[in-house]
This record gives sequence, structure tokens and C-alpha cells, in this order.
Amino acid sequence: MSKNNAARSQGMGALQIYEEIKRQILGGVFGSAGQLPSSRALAHELGVSRTTVTAAYEQLLAEGFIEVQQGARPRVACAVVGPSRNKTGSKRSVRTRLSAYGEHVRKIPPWSDKELGRLVVDFRHGDLASSDFPVTLWKRLMNKAMDRRPERLSYDDPRGSRRLRMALQGYLWRARTIRCDLDQIIIVNGSQQGLDLCARLLLDATDRFVIENPCYAMARQIFSGTGASPVSIPVDDDGLNTDLLAEIDARLAYVTPSHQFPLGGVMPISRRHQLLRWATRRNANVIEDDYDSEYRYDINPVAPLHGLENSDNVIYLGTISKTLSPTLRIGYLVVPPGLQDVFATAKELADRHSPVAEQEALAALIESGAYESHLRRVRRLNHERREILLNALRHRFGDKVAIEGADAGLHIVVWFKDLPGSLEAALLEKAHRAGVGVHTISRLYDQGAHGVRTDRIGLVMGYAALDARRIERGIQLLAEAIKQVRFARKPVPPT
Amino acid sequence: MSKNNAARSQGMGALQIYEEIKRQILGGVFGSAGQLPSSRALAHELGVSRTTVTAAYEQLLAEGFIEVQQGARPRVACAVVGPSRNKTGSKRSVRTRLSAYGEHVRKIPPWSDKELGRLVVDFRHGDLASSDFPVTLWKRLMNKAMDRRPERLSYDDPRGSRRLRMALQGYLWRARTIRCDLDQIIIVNGSQQGLDLCARLLLDATDRFVIENPCYAMARQIFSGTGASPVSIPVDDDGLNTDLLAEIDARLAYVTPSHQFPLGGVMPISRRHQLLRWATRRNANVIEDDYDSEYRYDINPVAPLHGLENSDNVIYLGTISKTLSPTLRIGYLVVPPGLQDVFATAKELADRHSPVAEQEALAALIESGAYESHLRRVRRLNHERREILLNALRHRFGDKVAIEGADAGLHIVVWFKDLPGSLEAALLEKAHRAGVGVHTISRLYDQGAHGVRTDRIGLVMGYAALDARRIERGIQLLAEAIKQVRFARKPVPPT
Repeated sequence: MSKNNAARSQGMGALQIYEEIKRQILGGVFGSAGQLPSSRALAHELGVSRTTVTAAYEQLLAEGFIEVQQGARPRVACAVVGPSRNKTGSKRSVRTRLSAYGEHVRKIPPWSDKELGRLVVDFRHGDLASSDFPVTLWKRLMNKAMDRRPERLSYDDPRGSRRLRMALQGYLWRARTIRCDLDQIIIVNGSQQGLDLCARLLLDATDRFVIENPCYAMARQIFSGTGASPVSIPVDDDGLNTDLLAEIDARLAYVTPSHQFPLGGVMPISRRHQLLRWATRRNANVIEDDYDSEYRYDINPVAPLHGLENSDNVIYLGTISKTLSPTLRIGYLVVPPGLQDVFATAKELADRHSPVAEQEALAALIESGAYESHLRRVRRLNHERREILLNALRHRFGDKVAIEGADAGLHIVVWFKDLPGSLEAALLEKAHRAGVGVHTISRLYDQGAHGVRTDRIGLVMGYAALDARRIERGIQLLAEAIKQVRFARKPVPPT
Repeated sequence: MSKNNAARSQGMGALQIYEEIKRQILGGVFGSAGQLPSSRALAHELGVSRTTVTAAYEQLLAEGFIEVQQGARPRVACAVVGPSRNKTGSKRSVRTRLSAYGEHVRKIPPWSDKELGRLVVDFRHGDLASSDFPVTLWKRLMNKAMDRRPERLSYDDPRGSRRLRMALQGYLWRARTIRCDLDQIIIVNGSQQGLDLCARLLLDATDRFVIENPCYAMARQIFSGTGASPVSIPVDDDGLNTDLLAEIDARLAYVTPSHQFPLGGVMPISRRHQLLRWATRRNANVIEDDYDSEYRYDINPVAPLHGLENSDNVIYLGTISKTLSPTLRIGYLVVPPGLQDVFATAKELADRHSPVAEQEALAALIESGAYESHLRRVRRLNHERREILLNALRHRFGDKVAIEGADAGLHIVVWFKDLPGSLEAALLEKAHRAGVGVHTISRLYDQGAHGVRTDRIGLVMGYAALDARRIERGIQLLAEAIKQVRFARKPVPPT
């Protein structure tokens, strides 16, 4: 790596510039038909003479890598951009000493997109249909937000846009009967950042935290990352089994009472009171993740924990990732008054504040009432998708499947009563080969605690990104995969 | 707070709805002339009959809070929106047991915007002129990005948009002679998140870290937040004094070699080598914060640490907060290959990934060459601003001031040779009263370590957000404030 620098001090040569740009063109750095910097600009950036850059460009032109038109900057010749070849000579890899948190993070399998786009149908939970997004309206609001020119561009309030927090304050009351002060609301980059701030501010390595079993895996990962120990409590049809809390001393409890993730139970009022009494007694915080409460179909709304008696310890967490888009990265915390300053400062230290334009656009969307109209629309669309999925499952599998959590949300849990857990790997492999992405519930259980069912396979099936044709096709492919698993399992008859 | 919920289960009354909406209107929740939800929608959200909501709306109409037009949703009557009165009855404040990190965060004074907008001129570093931002082009690129409709809206690669990372890969080579693999680049929400990820992954409470003295205060805060101990090393005209490193065992060093913040020194090549040799010997990481290297005026570029020999331990950090806008919240890390997976997973746990549309727009801006044209333009504009500021200082204060760090960046340090540090509070107060925001260097020093000068007051003066008229006006106001401080200081002659 020192060559580059040494070259600079002697004046980098045309050959080196030629080679580097060729490598970048082949690696797709400029896109296809993208423009290269002008020779003057590049000479200035690299601190070499323009003649040197021109010589490099002439060589690239001669070899057909670039095209030059009089007066314009050189362009990448369309034909040459091949598949990505970005492996430059890597630096020597050093085994770095990481922090305890770093070692925790190192053990988590890295993100992979290798399945994306390869499947015919993917029932992954968390994705939304892009056709549901109000793109024209959103663009109009974003353009308005981008047009608002303050005199100077400055770092903003770490708690987020005041206008958005005001709009959310009204929305939370209308939609969730939550009353709060403006300063209790902190805008975060999606629920995940909300959970991360809670984990960092509330948990030390010597603490324990209560978590549902099964649960949202990234919540367990982020809380465990502090070094604190999980106390996994089983969930049933009514969510977290609060009877089991009595003897537990823990610093916080993480719950999804509106629609338990993944099993879908709605926590009844008696358990809500039990949970809050426990939290008060233990001086523990309760994190109420209300990730998909906008979607209720056959049931009456249940007021969130946040509005109940003894809810002084509740931290409420909401998101637009399930209602608008996960790519916007906007969520919100409602924290107790005693924690509002410390959360605001923690958000500031984490990344100053969330991007401004999206917050302004969302505020305008809520203020105008269009957000709630949009919610009614996507609620109806997802209700239809759910019906199609339930019908397809009934049609293909009849009473061989048991379905949980269909009253609300954007996913259901489907138990295959005649497929023992031992066949899970085979099912995943056959389904993947058939082109259908399915996601088993077993990976959401705390493997250390007991609770995971081994007598049947459970799938968490999201449907919000799929249209009717895809849902039906997906269930058909899944049925074929299951047939293959069953067939393969049959003992070969003795010859 | 339980009343709301109890009310809901019995059917919330019209009076309660009336009172809550009145409170929200007065609090500005709907904006002025904003629309309220339709009675049907609100009845649905609250789970009450439409008659109940209609009764509440009729009362609001009768009292002049709202206006109703046939067929449209009710609107807030323009006249009624007064100043914000958001204090709802707060919950009982509970003293929450925080984590060690939480206690660290609690000690940091909360963000305050009380000075914003009240000053005639503010020399705060970090702000940019909104008129410098290429708003038309940016809007066009954002609209293109928002138009690109994938089939489904999904969580993205935690490392950030592949297209943006490719564009940055080329840019980093052209502008900074940095060569790296695509997967070494991690998009973060501005430098601050990059520093936070470094702190969390690399530092434990038992570790030590090297930091410049004086330094960027939020870097010291975030590293100290891990519980690790700072080792403050003085800086001089050549940046961090690397001679002092030899005996120090530390886990990482945080440096700003291109333009030391705040003093402005550029680290010469000999010190760069010395720093890297130290890091290799100690197996320490060096975080190279290249926060404003795009702005160089009178000096030749110095290649970043990242490109030198023995730079395997260097983590490079860049941002667009100084070139485009701090409100976009985009920065980037270039991490050693051995750390790329752990940084990607840490970013995923922190907030999944940065918002997508801005990343795509920035990628297009860089690919087209327009980013580098923009840089040339703002470099020229800021060069002019710097000249105006230097001239105004010379004109007003002559040789009573000494100026540091003017060769590069967007701020200078101005030492007032005849104002001892004991007058700092008085100067700040007088300046503030005169309407000019000035920011002293003393708060950027580690007060525990020695180094801060007491014989003179130093101001860190940012100029990137100001036009010529404001700069001159600001210096005039500052001169008046200083005159008052000097006058007040004069002993009263005996009568």
C-alpha cells in the first residue's frame, strides 16, 4: 500500500493511473457508461500533472475501456463492465483484540443476501410489498421537506424533529390511547436502535433480563451483548406467562404484548397488570415493543401497557417499518420522564440524530391524516393476503397444520403436526431447492432454555410482501417440498 | 393514566375526547389549519361509536376550535393555535437504576437549542451554509432513488448500499489514494456512529485509549463511555506529539492527522510513521478521522495514514457532514479486512442499516462526477470565507491575536494574546449578550491532563455557514464584547 503514496510524492506515473482506473472500470466503480473525472480534476486530486492523466486516459481509450467525446468527460465504454471483480490485494489480516461486546458480535453469523432474489417466493417476515408504499405522496412530501431551506445546515435535536414528535404525540393518543409529553418521545433509526439504546443504558454485564421464549432474535442478541444474562420465559396463547415472573429478579423485561413475536398471542389485561406489578416491585423497566399493532383483524384493540396503572417503568417502542417501509429507518421511543434526558444524550452520542428530511415528510404525512388513511388501506390489503394464505394452507394441508397468531400482525405461525423437528433441515433444503423461502420458528427459541417443540415443525410465515398468485404458488411449492421430505423419510422396503 | 384505558373499556366519553383534542390543538399537534381525523376514522381508532366522536367535534366547533366544511374532515381554526403548551400531567418520575454506560451518559449536559436562532451571528463549527447545498440536483437524485421500486421492501445490507460503497471506493482512491476492498467499507450515520462502533467493538472498561489534547469532545465522550481510560497526548503544530507514545500501552489511538481538531496542525510523514510503528508494536488500532480533508487551501495534500506502510491497524473514517450536509447523516468507515464482518454485524445490531434513498442519491452524485465538482465549488467558497474572516480579524485586532490551523478545514483557532483565561466567562457572556456566538477552545481540553493555556483565551471559529456580511458583523460584535470585558476589568480608580 505504500507504493501509492511513494508514487505520489515522486508524481504518480501514467501507467499506475491507467492500471488503477482499469481495475476500477472492470470492478464497476463508475457504473456502466458512467463518467470518469475530467483529466484536469483528476490531476488536481492526485497532485500530478494533467499530461500524466491524459497519457493514462489515452491508453484506456486506445484499449477501448473508455470513450471520449469532444468537450465532455470520458465515459466508460458500455461493453467493458463485466461482473464485479473487486478483490484488490487485501492487506495482511490481523487478528484484532476485541472488546467483550466485540467478541459477542463476532459470534453472530454475518448478514447474508445470498438467498435474496433467487427464490420464486419468500415468506420472510418483515418484508413489505413495494406496491403498498404511497410513493407519489411520499415523494411530494420529501420534496417539500427538501425545499425547506433553513439559513444554515446544523446538527439537529437528538430527540428528533419537533414537528414529527408533535405529530406522533397526537397519533399515539388517537391510535393507542397513549398520552405523553413531547420530550418523552425520541426518534430512532427503527426499533433496533431503540432496543440498542435501552440495552446500553439499562443493562450491565452483572444484570439479568426477562425475555420471551420464543422471541425476536435480534432483541435477545442486543440485550445479551451487554453481557447480561437472559431469563427466558415461555409464552403461550396469551403471550408471556407472567405467573412465572414472581421469583425473578431482573433489570428489565422485553415483551410484545399486542402480538407476541413470533407466536402471535395477545396479552390479556390480567397478565398486563401482573407484569407491571412485578416491574414496580423489582424496579425493573418493561420494554413494550409494539412493532405491528396497526394490524388487527378479528379482535378488539387492547390498550398498550403504557397507558395502564403502574406503567411508570414502561418504555414504549413503535416503528414505521411495518406500515410504510423498513428502508426508511424510522422508529420512536416513549420513555419515562425520568429517562428522557439520558435517552436524548445517548441518541446524540450514538449518531447525533436521525436524518432530517424523512422525519419532516413523515410529520406532514401524519398531520394531514394521510398516514392513518394509508394504515386503513394496508390493513385491508394485508387482511386479504392473510385470508389467501390461510385458505391456501387449508386447501393444501387441511387439518395437518395448526395455525397460531393469525388475529393480528403480518405473519402467522404454521405447525406441521405430522412433521417431527428432526426433519427440519431436510424441509428447509427441499423448500429452498423448490424456490420457496421458509423460516422455522426453532431458531427463535432460546436453545439453552427448554420450550422448543420437537414433535412438529413450525414455520413463521410473513405475507405482507406477497400477492395472491405468489402466496398460492409458494404454498404449492412448499407442499411439493414436504411431499419430498415425507417420501425420502419412508424406509426403503427390504428387497 | 389508567383513566384513559378504563374509559376505553367502558366506551370513552365525548367529554374526554373533546378535552384531549382541545389540549392537542392548543399544543399544536395538528399544526395550524391542520386536519383532524374524520369522525369515522377516530371512532374506529378509539373503539367508540361515531356518535360519541361527533358529539365531541360539535362541542369543539361550537367553541371555535375547529372549522367544518361539508364533506371534508374538520380543520383546526387558524386563530386558536397558540404557543406550545405540551405539559400533560407527567407521570411520577422514578429514579431508574442505569448501567455504567447510562451513568456516564447521565453526566453529560443535555443538548440544548436555546441559543439557536437568537444570535445575530454564530461562529459555531460544524454548520454549513444552506445556500452551498446543491438542492436541485440532490432533489433530482433523491426522486430517482425513490422511484426505483424493488419488488419488495426489505432490510438491506448492514454495510450499506453496494452502489454507494462502489462509488466511494473510487472516490477514496481519486481523492485520498486509499485502496480498499468493497467489503471494507461500512456506511454509517455520520462520523459519530463510526466512532461509537469503534468504541464498542474495541474498548473494554479495563482498557486505555490515546486521544489528542485538545480534541473533538464527542470522541472523548464516546470512548470514555466504555469505561476505558483516556491517555491525553498534547498536540502541537504538527498534530499529536508521537514522541510521547513510546511507553504508552493502549488499545487504540484516535487522531485527526489531516487537520487536527481543533488546533489545525497537519501531521508530517515522520510522525505518521512513528504512530503506525507504535500501533503495530502494541497491536493497537488507529482511528483516522478525516473529517474535513476535502478543504485544503495553501498546502499540499498529505496522504492519509490508511495508505502508508504498517497501516493494517488503521480504521479510516470519512463523512459528508462537512461537504454536503450534517442533516443527511452519512459517513463511512474503511476497516481492516479482519474486522469487516464484526463491524457489519455491529452496524446491523445498532440499527440494521442506514436509510436507503439518501445512499442511492449520494452514489449517483459521486458516480456522475458532480460530487467532486461540488467539492471544488465549496472549497472555493470556503476559501473566500476564510479570507474574509482572516482579514476581519487582522483589521479589528491586528497583532493582538494569533491564528492557528487556517491552512485547511472550515474553522480556525484565534488566540487573544492579551485576554487571560480568567476572563473567559465574562467574554462568553458579553459576546452572547451582543448577539455573537463564540466557542472557546478550553472545553475541548482534557481538564484532568495539563495542556490548556491559561494565559490567553482561544476561540474555535467556524465560518462555513456565514456570508461576508455576517462574518464582518460578527467580528465587529466580538470586538465590542471584548472592549466591554477589558473595560469591566479595569480597576476602578480610587476616589
